[in-house]
Amino acid sequence: MKRRSTRYLCAAALVLAAWTAIPPHAFAQAASPIDESLNLAWVLIAGFLVMFMQAGFAMVETGFTRSKNAVNTMAMNLVIYPIGIIGFWLTGYAFMMGGVRAWPALGAAQIGHTELSLSVGGHSWGFLGASKFALASVSHDPASLAMFLFTLVFMDTAATIPTGAMAERWKFSAFFIYGLFMSMFLYPLYGNWVWGGGWLSQMGVNLGLGHGHVDFAGSSVVHMTGGVTALAGVIVLGPRIGKFRRDGAIGALPGHNLPMAVIGTLILAFGWFGFNAGSTLAASDARIGVIAANTMLSSAAGALTALLYLWQRFKKPDIAMTCNGLLGGLVAITAPCAFVTPAAAVLIGIVSGFVVVSVVIGLERIFRIDDPVGAIAVHGGCGLWGALALGIFADGSYGEGWNGVAGPVRGLIAGDGLQFCAQLIGVAVNLVVIFGLAWIFFTIIERTIGNRVLAEVEWSGLDSLEMGSDAYPNV
Amino acid sequence: MKRRSTRYLCAAALVLAAWTAIPPHAFAQAASPIDESLNLAWVLIAGFLVMFMQAGFAMVETGFTRSKNAVNTMAMNLVIYPIGIIGFWLTGYAFMMGGVRAWPALGAAQIGHTELSLSVGGHSWGFLGASKFALASVSHDPASLAMFLFTLVFMDTAATIPTGAMAERWKFSAFFIYGLFMSMFLYPLYGNWVWGGGWLSQMGVNLGLGHGHVDFAGSSVVHMTGGVTALAGVIVLGPRIGKFRRDGAIGALPGHNLPMAVIGTLILAFGWFGFNAGSTLAASDARIGVIAANTMLSSAAGALTALLYLWQRFKKPDIAMTCNGLLGGLVAITAPCAFVTPAAAVLIGIVSGFVVVSVVIGLERIFRIDDPVGAIAVHGGCGLWGALALGIFADGSYGEGWNGVAGPVRGLIAGDGLQFCAQLIGVAVNLVVIFGLAWIFFTIIERTIGNRVLAEVEWSGLDSLEMGSDAYPNV
Amino acid sequence: MKRRSTRYLCAAALVLAAWTAIPPHAFAQAASPIDESLNLAWVLIAGFLVMFMQAGFAMVETGFTRSKNAVNTMAMNLVIYPIGIIGFWLTGYAFMMGGVRAWPALGAAQIGHTELSLSVGGHSWGFLGASKFALASVSHDPASLAMFLFTLVFMDTAATIPTGAMAERWKFSAFFIYGLFMSMFLYPLYGNWVWGGGWLSQMGVNLGLGHGHVDFAGSSVVHMTGGVTALAGVIVLGPRIGKFRRDGAIGALPGHNLPMAVIGTLILAFGWFGFNAGSTLAASDARIGVIAANTMLSSAAGALTALLYLWQRFKKPDIAMTCNGLLGGLVAITAPCAFVTPAAAVLIGIVSGFVVVSVVIGLERIFRIDDPVGAIAVHGGCGLWGALALGIFADGSYGEGWNGVAGPVRGLIAGDGLQFCAQLIGVAVNLVVIFGLAWIFFTIIERTIGNRVLAEVEWSGLDSLEMGSDAYPNV
Repeated sequence: MKRRSTRYLCAAALVLAAWTAIPPHAFAQAASPIDESLNLAWVLIAGFLVMFMQAGFAMVETGFTRSKNAVNTMAMNLVIYPIGIIGFWLTGYAFMMGGVRAWPALGAAQIGHTELSLSVGGHSWGFLGASKFALASVSHDPASLAMFLFTLVFMDTAATIPTGAMAERWKFSAFFIYGLFMSMFLYPLYGNWVWGGGWLSQMGVNLGLGHGHVDFAGSSVVHMTGGVTALAGVIVLGPRIGKFRRDGAIGALPGHNLPMAVIGTLILAFGWFGFNAGSTLAASDARIGVIAANTMLSSAAGALTALLYLWQRFKKPDIAMTCNGLLGGLVAITAPCAFVTPAAAVLIGIVSGFVVVSVVIGLERIFRIDDPVGAIAVHGGCGLWGALALGIFADGSYGEGWNGVAGPVRGLIAGDGLQFCAQLIGVAVNLVVIFGLAWIFFTIIERTIGNRVLAEVEWSGLDSLEMGSDAYPNV
Repeated sequence: MKRRSTRYLCAAALVLAAWTAIPPHAFAQAASPIDESLNLAWVLIAGFLVMFMQAGFAMVETGFTRSKNAVNTMAMNLVIYPIGIIGFWLTGYAFMMGGVRAWPALGAAQIGHTELSLSVGGHSWGFLGASKFALASVSHDPASLAMFLFTLVFMDTAATIPTGAMAERWKFSAFFIYGLFMSMFLYPLYGNWVWGGGWLSQMGVNLGLGHGHVDFAGSSVVHMTGGVTALAGVIVLGPRIGKFRRDGAIGALPGHNLPMAVIGTLILAFGWFGFNAGSTLAASDARIGVIAANTMLSSAAGALTALLYLWQRFKKPDIAMTCNGLLGGLVAITAPCAFVTPAAAVLIGIVSGFVVVSVVIGLERIFRIDDPVGAIAVHGGCGLWGALALGIFADGSYGEGWNGVAGPVRGLIAGDGLQFCAQLIGVAVNLVVIFGLAWIFFTIIERTIGNRVLAEVEWSGLDSLEMGSDAYPNV
Repeated sequence: MKRRSTRYLCAAALVLAAWTAIPPHAFAQAASPIDESLNLAWVLIAGFLVMFMQAGFAMVETGFTRSKNAVNTMAMNLVIYPIGIIGFWLTGYAFMMGGVRAWPALGAAQIGHTELSLSVGGHSWGFLGASKFALASVSHDPASLAMFLFTLVFMDTAATIPTGAMAERWKFSAFFIYGLFMSMFLYPLYGNWVWGGGWLSQMGVNLGLGHGHVDFAGSSVVHMTGGVTALAGVIVLGPRIGKFRRDGAIGALPGHNLPMAVIGTLILAFGWFGFNAGSTLAASDARIGVIAANTMLSSAAGALTALLYLWQRFKKPDIAMTCNGLLGGLVAITAPCAFVTPAAAVLIGIVSGFVVVSVVIGLERIFRIDDPVGAIAVHGGCGLWGALALGIFADGSYGEGWNGVAGPVRGLIAGDGLQFCAQLIGVAVNLVVIFGLAWIFFTIIERTIGNRVLAEVEWSGLDSLEMGSDAYPNV
């Protein structure tokens, strides 16, 4: 077995080495125009901040799970990052962004372009991009590589979300395969439809529905995709042992390190500024000031709503839920952040706080679904709410020409009901397609290698039996 | 009770929704000049770094407190952030910056401007700004919103400081009300006087005292305000049970996680680069290079001074105090960072190390004041020292036209004794006004809902009885 | 004793105060050209990110060591930062960069310049720079101070590496002296040879060996220097008690907090973007996009290689080694990141994964060398590999005129075997000179104050007896 895998690795190495010898074509290192330089730096710095959210997710999820599973939860959050990089490099970026010709604000010179169209209408109905596999055709184009980095870290955010909801019982090998599926195919599919020039983005041009489905920084593309995938995974995987007892009681199974979860939440809030403000893809777009302030206001409103609502209800401030309320506010403002006023951002955050609390309680008590960290509520619930909120509150002050449609983006209040329809269709398609494909994927895994560790592994903790090392061996 | 609060929330939501429908006026998305774009990006990135300091404060304070209060200490550091955002959004920004017409370096187009003047001299003696409440009049101005974000995270830094000094015994509801008081009124008051065009900044123009009170990035405005407020709070609140025994002995009450405090210190040092270098409000001001290097040099000198001084005195390197020395060096260089040479920065840091150690020991042994994390020494003591240090070491190489006074800023050594006077007046006013108002505030709370948890809550730890959850429930 | 040290401090303070009074010469604050402003901001932000890696190192190293030594390991990672700042300020920067006239991309105006040449050939064979001691001659030059900050944080990275390899048995006083030696002399020496215009960088001009030794961001300058110094230190210091038993068995001595190490790894990966992309010293160089993507791809390939290799070999995913594989991929891509294609970056990362695993196992089993955190393998092994990889994979698409040699940088595959020779010479010199000088240094310390704590201190843990405080005193 060892010799065989070594042989595979050598073969892969040879292929890679061959690539490196491709003669570089036309590398005039002409000085870029200064605004392109500024925008390229902006996209990269924003991408770095989003990458750092990996540490935030790792801390939130591990803090909310038990110490006997701390290595496993950390490991999933760590390993999804390299899996995602390699998977997205191989096919994900090509499927998602292969149909995008260039990034003019970043000074891109696109090299090579093919569009795989499965639909009748040509480009605008393309179902998947099909160029730039393994970045081979754009290996020296700074703008394309910066966009690879930037879109990748968004994908990794989506891919990390299910590791929280499915924590404490997921087989590491099944998780590993999931990571490849998510980064190579599932995320890029919906991502292409909204951000890669695909059909959801073209509903404005083609069907007259406002500007098509608009999602500024990923309430639906990133967070709903992650949350809906998590929901499918959790349904197939089932609850943790001890969560739902035979007598109907619900076990608490508290996490092992609340301070860790709080710090993770603050790291996420920090990185989120890159997530949202970076999504202009340009610091030369002064809207970044509005976006950053809105992001912060919505997070605050979400946090305080969850805190005050539960405080007056249960007489104690619930800090775990305050964290989730803050994150819910961030998730919800992600789609509309560039299109709404600060006051609307506060309102969107307030609603998010209620959404998080209700969905957490509803999933657990009504649907008896076990999500240890509240990921489905935060990312799925508030992601859905955020995409709709854009269709309600977009005030017509931004988005001129978005998705090829003249005029700014307006929601219901500003008089464009069709934009709201486009938002509704976008989230409905996410719910149906992402849930469906994820459920099929998890079911196939279930029938083959299985998704879940053995009961004795779950009892002892995944760290000792699945991972082979304890989190805190000699404290 | 539940129904009433829900009603309030619905009313608030309706008001907010109404705001969102305000028709946007004049949104020409003209491309900004490139230097304005660069500066806007700089202010935002710096603001993000300062926001991340929240995580640093949370780790330092929680690491220095006991595990039975870890959730409570974390919670205060987490929740002050959203409280501060909402409070500063509602009134704080308006009180502090309402009198500032525009941010030309950021390309601001100010909309609406009213100045509430309580004094005789018109604008220059204004006691509080009075426009831009809830950002309503500037809801689409990127520069104003970026400045809201930037000034807010500074306020949040000040507001976090007392949560360390008053930790392990402060009632969460009293803390919550304090958060609103600080963000909505107390910080903006002094902030307006120094940074909002208020009377301390105008002492140069009006009284001939150098350039008026000059504070580049907040030694007095941010850190002294936080430290002095903490002092007032601690005096009203009293020491922790077990700190000062009847026989005169002083209990050690060591924190529970020194590594956490060290990481928090490094996070603060990281974010501080945004704090200081961002305060140019312009990357087009090359002084950012000097500021960043000075910031780092002073922190190093503060850390090594505290370390070596205590090492030779007690024969062991004291790492907790090394952290505080490093932070003290950062606090002290915050006011003078743009005006002094690297050598002066080192000297300022050396003095800070001694200030931190002496004030920590003095407060505890002489005044029997109990500050679990040393916040009063670090922020109050070194904040005062830093504001004076500017008046000593400013070398006349920077600050041309500062606060409307011709010529660069010079301190005592460079021959301007009146600048030193302006610095002295600034810190004296901070001591008197901030201490006075904070003391009155805490005393009112004491006589109404009370500041302090019951003794049995303090004994058991605030986590179980006040917060309802343990920090480390199943390790 | 106390009075004497106080006297020294006063004397130092007087000298510093004298400096601050130097009259500032010619401070025309003319607006910089916009591209210089952008580049200055870029270098500073990148430097801040690299500084933050201090927190990452602290967490990785402390997580991989035992709780009884957690304060000591944290303390070394904390204190090396201020030691390094002061040491590099006093002499390190002068020795390393004193011969560099100006930083044109940052708008530098160099003031004062002397070159101490120990060799026969004048400037190009200079062995050490000799101007800008204590930054005195450039105290108001933003570009020089920004470069001080930027080169300093790279030095601090190198200086931190041995604190991991030598952890759990190193006397704190010996470590303190080492910190001064490293920052004031050892690192600047090799740094001068490669980055300060020294002889290794001039082997192209003088000997026709490609572009001389090329190291884009520090595989050899930073990481190999750190790793090789660590190797010398560990050899002099010897293994921890209990590591290599008399019967030949090897003790495991597992670290105390694997989640902490994982978070530290992610922080390092975050900061590394500043390390590599910042090393263009210019955001106006669009190559930053390529560099950032390559950095990420190599880290992913290193992590997955280590993970999959050990997983198939030992049937469990080894998360600690996955962290080291990820870091190894980062170390190796650091030298070639700007010169190679994404596919080559993946290949370099794959090799790094094998290098890390083999060197960790080889050092322990064959050479019986005890490195608790794998620092020698990660930084020394992959640093060496990265410097050579540049000589193999540089594809001729970048580096026009590098080190004064016409044409781009090409490695073996692109047909320049002499470049590979220059890389080989560079790493050989690092191995011989750095190892030799470090070994001499550690041997002198061994014969004077001693490098190692007493056996009883090691048994009880360094925290209680060496540092005087426990990491987790009341959990």
